[in-house]
Amino acid sequence: MTETPKWIAADWGTSHLRLWPMGNDDRPLRRIDSDLGMSRLSSEDYEPALLNLLGDDLPEALPVIICGMAGSRQGWAEAPYVETPCAVPFEGTQVTTRDPRLRLHILPGIKQMRPPDVMRGEETQIGGFLAKEPGFDGVLCLPGTHNKWVHISAHEIVSFRTFMTGELFALLGGQSVLRHSLGGEGWDSAAFADAVSNTLSRPATLTSSLFTLRADSLLNGTGADVTRARLSGLLIGAELAAARPYWLGQDIVILGEDAVAAAYRDALAAQGAAARLVPAGDITLAGLTAAYHHLKDKI
Amino acid sequence: MTETPKWIAADWGTSHLRLWPMGNDDRPLRRIDSDLGMSRLSSEDYEPALLNLLGDDLPEALPVIICGMAGSRQGWAEAPYVETPCAVPFEGTQVTTRDPRLRLHILPGIKQMRPPDVMRGEETQIGGFLAKEPGFDGVLCLPGTHNKWVHISAHEIVSFRTFMTGELFALLGGQSVLRHSLGGEGWDSAAFADAVSNTLSRPATLTSSLFTLRADSLLNGTGADVTRARLSGLLIGAELAAARPYWLGQDIVILGEDAVAAAYRDALAAQGAAARLVPAGDITLAGLTAAYHHLKDKI
Repeated sequence: MTETPKWIAADWGTSHLRLWPMGNDDRPLRRIDSDLGMSRLSSEDYEPALLNLLGDDLPEALPVIICGMAGSRQGWAEAPYVETPCAVPFEGTQVTTRDPRLRLHILPGIKQMRPPDVMRGEETQIGGFLAKEPGFDGVLCLPGTHNKWVHISAHEIVSFRTFMTGELFALLGGQSVLRHSLGGEGWDSAAFADAVSNTLSRPATLTSSLFTLRADSLLNGTGADVTRARLSGLLIGAELAAARPYWLGQDIVILGEDAVAAAYRDALAAQGAAARLVPAGDITLAGLTAAYHHLKDKI
Repeated sequence: MTETPKWIAADWGTSHLRLWPMGNDDRPLRRIDSDLGMSRLSSEDYEPALLNLLGDDLPEALPVIICGMAGSRQGWAEAPYVETPCAVPFEGTQVTTRDPRLRLHILPGIKQMRPPDVMRGEETQIGGFLAKEPGFDGVLCLPGTHNKWVHISAHEIVSFRTFMTGELFALLGGQSVLRHSLGGEGWDSAAFADAVSNTLSRPATLTSSLFTLRADSLLNGTGADVTRARLSGLLIGAELAAARPYWLGQDIVILGEDAVAAAYRDALAAQGAAARLVPAGDITLAGLTAAYHHLKDKI
């Protein structure tokens, strides 16, 4: 017989959705993946989508804690941003549902006014990390399509900056004229390190170096592995130049262990900055769980 | 009765093709536009495409002077690059055709080895400009998808640099997360000037400033006109920072009179650099005509 969930953890992003029906002792009973992200749903589609994915064996009262783009203005219901400096926000916006069993809490994102910046979803990852390392004082790097640097001190998010490095790499590598020069998945570490060093020391060269990648492959037959690593290195080096106030002299943690996380670690190491990689596979669930414990007596 | 052309001028690019059947006195009889660019043709498709567009009222011997991507390795036939420093190349690669009436000459592009760079098509625009101003000594700016800065001295192309600024603007504005913040065609001149000044003085801020555009529109309701002009200004400012050795203290000519050409002029003017806009509508035809006069006794 299947165990009935005690509550539901939900990471509801732009293109994907992950649900964890949770048992006792903060243990997920299973994980449900779906591509019914925000971009495919209008406001009234969310509740039927959720019930359909969960099936009908639900208890009388079922807390659902949601983070991510479902809380944006174009999502299920807006969970207004909390402003920096602030603790990770665990007070969800309560949303009334048609099905009386659902107790819906959507966690807010975080905004920063000067310079303007926003996050929605990453704050819950940060909450998951701080649940494991509550005394952390330093800088978190969250690699992704929109890479984020977050300064944490005294249990608060002091400030943060978002870089479109992942999206730029995808657009330039997949859709610009450079796509002809970097097929495949190959990687040349020395070329990466060289390129990081170029744009880190002279960030103005980023824009002039991009077309050089194409010309170099046309004129010198430079291979896709080198070109691919160089493009990544140029972009990450330029990001590190702009993010220097964040990482210089700080305790740095990179959330993730994949190739991109390793690329950031290697780029920082070449600058004499040691960064620690922390597994991030369950970090969002840990953040949702922390929010649940914060909220459960009020639900 | 239609006049029979004396020769054919052809600007055969990646996505478009322009043909000018030419009469006496360097006068185009008409202009034929087609979307049969290089990207839609394999090598053996070019000759039938050309004959089909010209119709059949051709003289016994018809010189055809072609510039652009038709001369690339993936084009009709490769016209190998000439290396800088060099005069504008007017010696075309002769290509044998099945139809004995055609006397085909494909003009080469130009390559630079250090740093690696290439052009194919722009050299003929430069030739057209120099046909009108043979004594020019200074820097040409050729705005486009891949913007080029070209140092001209003593009738030679000394060096050049290509920037993907136009392509970056199109990708970021049309396909990245920023597309939600800059629809329409509006323009705010003050926002443009501000953004140019930011990245020109501190080029490292380019990568951190991009997501700020999105956050600023979400948090402050900043309008599409401002965001659009800022994105353009950030990219052009970063380009000008890297291209400074080209334009600083030089006689600058921008080939073109459209909004993009004007944006470059305004950005340079704010730096105290006066640039002259030169109409470029017929500049490729002028370059092909100069090549025809160079070649005609050999054809």
